[in-house]
Amino acid sequence: MAKTNPGRFFEDYTLGQVIEHAVPRTVGEGERALYHALYPARHALYSSDMFAADSGLDGSPIDDLAAFHVVFGKTVPDISLNAVANLGYAEGRWLKPVYPGDTLRSVSEVIGLKQNSNGKSGVVYVRTRGLNQMDEVVMEYVRWVMVRKSNLDAPAPETTIPELKKTLAVDDLSIPDGLDFSNYDFVQAGEPHRWGDYEAGEVIDHVDGVTIEEAEHMIATRLWQNTAKVHFDATFRPDGQRLIYGGHVISMARALSFNGLANAQMIVGLNGGAHANPCFSGLTVKAWSEVLDKAETSAPGVGAIRLRLVATSDGSVGELKGEDGKFLPGVLLDLDYWALMPT
Amino acid sequence: MAKTNPGRFFEDYTLGQVIEHAVPRTVGEGERALYHALYPARHALYSSDMFAADSGLDGSPIDDLAAFHVVFGKTVPDISLNAVANLGYAEGRWLKPVYPGDTLRSVSEVIGLKQNSNGKSGVVYVRTRGLNQMDEVVMEYVRWVMVRKSNLDAPAPETTIPELKKTLAVDDLSIPDGLDFSNYDFVQAGEPHRWGDYEAGEVIDHVDGVTIEEAEHMIATRLWQNTAKVHFDATFRPDGQRLIYGGHVISMARALSFNGLANAQMIVGLNGGAHANPCFSGLTVKAWSEVLDKAETSAPGVGAIRLRLVATSDGSVGELKGEDGKFLPGVLLDLDYWALMPT
Amino acid sequence: MAKTNPGRFFEDYTLGQVIEHAVPRTVGEGERALYHALYPARHALYSSDMFAADSGLDGSPIDDLAAFHVVFGKTVPDISLNAVANLGYAEGRWLKPVYPGDTLRSVSEVIGLKQNSNGKSGVVYVRTRGLNQMDEVVMEYVRWVMVRKSNLDAPAPETTIPELKKTLAVDDLSIPDGLDFSNYDFVQAGEPHRWGDYEAGEVIDHVDGVTIEEAEHMIATRLWQNTAKVHFDATFRPDGQRLIYGGHVISMARALSFNGLANAQMIVGLNGGAHANPCFSGLTVKAWSEVLDKAETSAPGVGAIRLRLVATSDGSVGELKGEDGKFLPGVLLDLDYWALMPT
Repeated sequence: MAKTNPGRFFEDYTLGQVIEHAVPRTVGEGERALYHALYPARHALYSSDMFAADSGLDGSPIDDLAAFHVVFGKTVPDISLNAVANLGYAEGRWLKPVYPGDTLRSVSEVIGLKQNSNGKSGVVYVRTRGLNQMDEVVMEYVRWVMVRKSNLDAPAPETTIPELKKTLAVDDLSIPDGLDFSNYDFVQAGEPHRWGDYEAGEVIDHVDGVTIEEAEHMIATRLWQNTAKVHFDATFRPDGQRLIYGGHVISMARALSFNGLANAQMIVGLNGGAHANPCFSGLTVKAWSEVLDKAETSAPGVGAIRLRLVATSDGSVGELKGEDGKFLPGVLLDLDYWALMPT
Repeated sequence: MAKTNPGRFFEDYTLGQVIEHAVPRTVGEGERALYHALYPARHALYSSDMFAADSGLDGSPIDDLAAFHVVFGKTVPDISLNAVANLGYAEGRWLKPVYPGDTLRSVSEVIGLKQNSNGKSGVVYVRTRGLNQMDEVVMEYVRWVMVRKSNLDAPAPETTIPELKKTLAVDDLSIPDGLDFSNYDFVQAGEPHRWGDYEAGEVIDHVDGVTIEEAEHMIATRLWQNTAKVHFDATFRPDGQRLIYGGHVISMARALSFNGLANAQMIVGLNGGAHANPCFSGLTVKAWSEVLDKAETSAPGVGAIRLRLVATSDGSVGELKGEDGKFLPGVLLDLDYWALMPT
Repeated sequence: MAKTNPGRFFEDYTLGQVIEHAVPRTVGEGERALYHALYPARHALYSSDMFAADSGLDGSPIDDLAAFHVVFGKTVPDISLNAVANLGYAEGRWLKPVYPGDTLRSVSEVIGLKQNSNGKSGVVYVRTRGLNQMDEVVMEYVRWVMVRKSNLDAPAPETTIPELKKTLAVDDLSIPDGLDFSNYDFVQAGEPHRWGDYEAGEVIDHVDGVTIEEAEHMIATRLWQNTAKVHFDATFRPDGQRLIYGGHVISMARALSFNGLANAQMIVGLNGGAHANPCFSGLTVKAWSEVLDKAETSAPGVGAIRLRLVATSDGSVGELKGEDGKFLPGVLLDLDYWALMPT
């Protein structure tokens, strides 16, 4: 019994600690097809090798969020097995496209620790990097989680809270080598709206909705080798419900955002994100976006757009928090990211 | 909000109009595997690269119906988003096998228009072509749908009803280059019955049944990037049920028809088809076929067989319509197609 | 109607009879991805091409159990369509890894027959071999099933019960050419425990559980082209439930066993197995293992470990049978296999 993984507790983390996560994973055409089967994903750059090649890439990459899920999934047994809550994300950057055949692994560094005043838990900050078979970093992000202590007598570590950017600047973003939207085909991409057509403050209702099924979220979550018990075992929670992996909601909302943001092709930065309320099967996920910012880039024909992506379970649009400052009950996700669009 | 796609209304179509549909899609090994996971597909030519090579092809193609679903799915946002009913199919021809790695796109031409006498809707006829990355037409078909008018004051177009063949003749069919069933392996294909063993009027009960699950039809429908709301959003219909994409029933019935028609390997023509009654999860789909016609072809060892494929929800066999000329309630699909068999 | 497959009955089998099963199947990256989507599979050798290459293989093979399912699935229409019960397995050996792109077919030989005393059924023993496109045997196993007689007047065959090894000796196992665990990366594999850390009698509770969904087991079972009615048709059983394919439980339990046996990388032998109780959707599958034996091998750094893998529906650990010698109601599977581990 000592051979199974009990997960790390708060006192097991030390500042500067580097954790190499198991298990490496080769992602391929199968993962690409499954991504399209699980989410209504239609962004042309990830659907068509020809469209991607015409944009200067070596064929169609694995969806940016699929790369994120693979990198993230590996960290679960080491970071969040005993987590009470997933508190936030920051400084997420996609540095290189992931192509079919690439093998990914993940490494995290503990960059912050703060024991809670109750002495029973603490907050752990990690910067996680996903690397490919050539040891190139394909993406990185900071995540902080609240983790239980196992030994309540363990001394509290010195409190260190990392300085994290609230928002990545456009110069922080990495534009894939060779990316060129000069000859972008708006007809094949599905919408005529270019970067110049969007303005900060604009809210877009993505209209469509998908009702969540148990089988689908489990297939998705396993695909990323995320094995957190609460997503799979109906006997684990007192109410007999399985909690939907937050990444499933992220991918569902992003795919739904095609309708109105079909040209927000590549995700390159994650400024922050909150899983506002838990998601369960039977709920119908809809999404809306707000344009937060825009910036020019040095790549030909490529503009950056900063978007808030909100997933809801009640179809509401434009409302996030109540007068008490808390997320409204119909909000599932509040995500702040940078995407690349044709200018 | 103006950035999302409201779909076209009847008055938005004009005769001769050519619509290029988004989004191009590279289909590969993943889509092939998923087709086998979603349907009990066993036709050897689509299961084994070796069997296909022994039949003169460059490896195992993507299932003919998968190619159809990909081509069809792209047309949904432009043709049937505001459709009241899918009225019929005609002159469907598979012109080239689709292989893993091919990138498909779709183009439709409006070939007929007829406003309904109530002035609130009309029938639109389109001929849709699916093209690969070399701009070769891999398949085409005619489909007509009833579409609502948005502006009831818009003038009625001149009525044009295209002349459509009730049935494709064998000379209208395209036999894949190199196809050769001279050395066909009936043991590996699964049944001994050859083209000569079937005769017009023969009815085959395919025996097996599959109970439909919500997760499965949604995975299938998304895989073809068909995003029609009614298939995904349980809040869309007053009764809370999701409507099963008609193509899911077609593929399920075709796969079930292996048991009795294992050697009807390739679908090359679609003469017509009707989604007789809506399908919902929980129903158990069974299938039967009737041999309608047979014809010789010029390819070595290859015969053509015209089949009626009927999907049912009640296990009935051989009955289609009641005395009132309407489809019986247990009939889901009535499809008329040409397939190629070893002689 | 005579064209559909009624399946073989007991009197249709003769000793020494060789049955070539339809339909050949090319397995690829799609099947690999689906295996990871359907089961919480994390063994590094099957997840990462790099890890497999570092272990001396030509990239990551298709999971051993996926190869088993493909080979097994083909036998269903010929062996178990009219089976009353799946009685046992023996002498299962994996002889060559199956790689993406390989095409598999199956051949069975009848090696034993015994009519039951009631005259209504009998036991058929077959040795099944799976072959790749180069006619190399990739795996083989013996299985015996109880099959109904159709013609009760058919004479009983001479009783022949094959001599089967209760347990394969380590010399009976085939170690893949080139396999070398000398430079095994325990961090990337996910656990530090090596072959030397396990001892006979040790029991490991694998902790995690997965609740079974109808959509998932049907997707899995179809993927292996196993078309047994009871798995798909809710109208087939009086209680309206679909019986879960026993192989789905095997794969689920094996994948769950990663937690505690992450380094039991390759399955090379199957000594025996029993589907102790039927599995239905809604049950939560958990697993435990018992170390039964250990043996050295001639491959560098590679040890063999013999394991009992038990799947349960009630989370029990360490208990198999009641005082009456029958499996306890919470036991779904009792499997006895050999795996390869780093020493």
